[in-house]
Amino acid sequence: MRDFLPEDVRHREYVIGIITRVYERYGFEPLETPAAENLETLMGKYGEEGNQLIFKILKRGEHEASGQADLALRYDLTVPLARVIAHHQAKLPRLFKRYQIQPVWRADRPARGRFREFYQCDVDALGSTSPVIEAEICGAVSEALTELGFADFTIRMNHRQLLTSMLAWCGVPEPLHSTALVAVDKLDKIGPEGVEGEMQARGVDAQAAHAVLQEFARLREAGFDAAIPFDATGQEAFKNLGAIASLAQNTPAANRIRFDPSLARGLSYYTGAIMEINVPDLAGSLGGGGRYDNLVGMFLGQSIPACGFSLGLERILVVMGERNMFPPSLATTPADVMVAVFDAKDTPHALRVAQMLRASGLRVMVYPDPDKIGKQIKYADTQGIPFVAILGGDEIANGTVTVKHLAAQTQTIYDQAAAGAAILEGLTHRG
Amino acid sequence: MRDFLPEDVRHREYVIGIITRVYERYGFEPLETPAAENLETLMGKYGEEGNQLIFKILKRGEHEASGQADLALRYDLTVPLARVIAHHQAKLPRLFKRYQIQPVWRADRPARGRFREFYQCDVDALGSTSPVIEAEICGAVSEALTELGFADFTIRMNHRQLLTSMLAWCGVPEPLHSTALVAVDKLDKIGPEGVEGEMQARGVDAQAAHAVLQEFARLREAGFDAAIPFDATGQEAFKNLGAIASLAQNTPAANRIRFDPSLARGLSYYTGAIMEINVPDLAGSLGGGGRYDNLVGMFLGQSIPACGFSLGLERILVVMGERNMFPPSLATTPADVMVAVFDAKDTPHALRVAQMLRASGLRVMVYPDPDKIGKQIKYADTQGIPFVAILGGDEIANGTVTVKHLAAQTQTIYDQAAAGAAILEGLTHRG
Repeated sequence: MRDFLPEDVRHREYVIGIITRVYERYGFEPLETPAAENLETLMGKYGEEGNQLIFKILKRGEHEASGQADLALRYDLTVPLARVIAHHQAKLPRLFKRYQIQPVWRADRPARGRFREFYQCDVDALGSTSPVIEAEICGAVSEALTELGFADFTIRMNHRQLLTSMLAWCGVPEPLHSTALVAVDKLDKIGPEGVEGEMQARGVDAQAAHAVLQEFARLREAGFDAAIPFDATGQEAFKNLGAIASLAQNTPAANRIRFDPSLARGLSYYTGAIMEINVPDLAGSLGGGGRYDNLVGMFLGQSIPACGFSLGLERILVVMGERNMFPPSLATTPADVMVAVFDAKDTPHALRVAQMLRASGLRVMVYPDPDKIGKQIKYADTQGIPFVAILGGDEIANGTVTVKHLAAQTQTIYDQAAAGAAILEGLTHRG
Repeated sequence: MRDFLPEDVRHREYVIGIITRVYERYGFEPLETPAAENLETLMGKYGEEGNQLIFKILKRGEHEASGQADLALRYDLTVPLARVIAHHQAKLPRLFKRYQIQPVWRADRPARGRFREFYQCDVDALGSTSPVIEAEICGAVSEALTELGFADFTIRMNHRQLLTSMLAWCGVPEPLHSTALVAVDKLDKIGPEGVEGEMQARGVDAQAAHAVLQEFARLREAGFDAAIPFDATGQEAFKNLGAIASLAQNTPAANRIRFDPSLARGLSYYTGAIMEINVPDLAGSLGGGGRYDNLVGMFLGQSIPACGFSLGLERILVVMGERNMFPPSLATTPADVMVAVFDAKDTPHALRVAQMLRASGLRVMVYPDPDKIGKQIKYADTQGIPFVAILGGDEIANGTVTVKHLAAQTQTIYDQAAAGAAILEGLTHRG
């Protein structure tokens, strides 16, 4: 887990600001949930590996010595959302679109763009099975990435039920499907032979495993025009994918979507279309999502259809940093102007002038100590503060202030009331 | 710990936005730290009660069964800041002013405005012992509260070394000072007799305890003009308080500061001036802070003077809610306009029109299902979405869209390209 120093926070807030504005433009409303959930809310929702990566919180008080945990840090924003839907159902509309930008925690091995604490930027829509939902979600995340400056991302798309039908058709028995998908999920990392081998190690017979890999190759080649010889569920699933892709052509996701028959997504709660966004220069994904029509039902006892997408903030930041995608106008200084004083007894005047400058809309730092004026100015310079306002005896007597522009090495005397506007003007011309 | 539904989040973001802008105006820079700190970083920093209220996180993997904790959820933002200063010292300026707005966690008994997860909005300045620091911090938090609409807050101020000198002068032996302060801290809740009793229960002799309460009464009566018969340290501390109060007269904290000789503040790391902000209609404080010149030294082995203030977001929200202080203009609907369709086959047109409306700057929801048009409009109405854009066969053929203004019960046909501007105009006049 990492600290974020001022420049890091400014980069993060810039990205979060753009994503928030785009999500709101699509009719998503903000939601926040607590960092900690009941342990049983999270357990069993994330598949084989997820359970082990959950950070657990010790019981408090007299139970602490027992070493037992009752709470856990949230592992994603989707399971908490499903709990919220079940818990607050009466207060929420039957069609509910929410976004949520908060950290999650996973006790995972850190890697490039992967941390134990990281922010997810989620959009989810609950209450409709229409492919319009998937299409608009793809549109919203595409618009967000485009506004951030990404021009080269791809949305890979697949369908859990297509995968299931295909596995059955290839001769993988149903009880082995979820373990087979864990192997399939590693295709990018270990290649087709690797997956075939791991499927066999997980109990799938060699012929079936080989057939699965052959079907992946055939379907990938054919794309959305592929012939689907699987059962009716599989054909329906493929039709659903086609409908989503076709609708998405009318959104900012146009020409972004590729059919990827081997996309599996690790999390066990998906039931329909699944998506993942990639860029060429990052091994992992920038985000992923899909339809999970049964998850709310685990909390509510009544199914509510749902679909969502999660953009990974840290990975977006890693790529944007490497590609120099942050606008140079992002503030990198603590203040626009620093007020310096010649003499400690004049500090009340410095505070008053600072207040006048702030009222003009400036970010103002008051140098707190009666150090030599050269030392004060040097501090402003090393901090990148472009202007220094100096108050000496003459200025105080005359109601003026001397404003130094450090980069231009100029200084001008202003009436105190006029200095703010002059500095603002100088900042604008500079930027 | 609580969920925040859309309206709650909007209220929180509104308050956080104002506080952030004010803090930046004073030259504070943003900083963020992880939710979890090493357990030993937190232990022993918060005094008698704090240690017990820390949420501890179980070790992961093979060590999980041991029931031992190695991490803990952060209890405040000050100790993590001190750790950051020690850890990143080379990258930070010698005078460093940061703000940090993040949640903290305490396993406390919930009460009005008190929760187990709550946000603190902190400003801290490191690297100077000047009373300008305290004065400007009081100015910044006063300006934030004023911009939020508070007109009736008071800043109570005291000094840890004044308290210590006074306790010594009254005959409380030094080893009993910190336990005595725990009792003093409860004055608001249990009254002078209660504190006197609790001091005795904590081992302070009756005469000394009585003298302490008498001194409180005398000093409170006299205010900043009080005579200070204590030792030199106490006299210096009182002079420091006077300097802060006098400088603060040149900031938005003018006329807000009162000397409160019994203010103790629970946390054990304070070393100088301590402050607390109160409003009449809340038993607890809206925030508090003070100087803690030795805390960074616990991590760095070298003292760095520091002073800070923390505004409590949840308490500010509670009072603002009860007083109806939120501006009516805060968005309370998921969208400005909903796009409805008569026929599922027309959905691609709906998505295209939605995209045009978004490009005009509107927040747009697309109704995803081909429900009866009356049902679609009713959904928009219950959600408070003011406009519905309807696409039927005629509109699609003509490149138009019918826009219904639900409250006015009017409808107008626009060219699709002109609808966005018309709806924006309608929204402005409405608001």
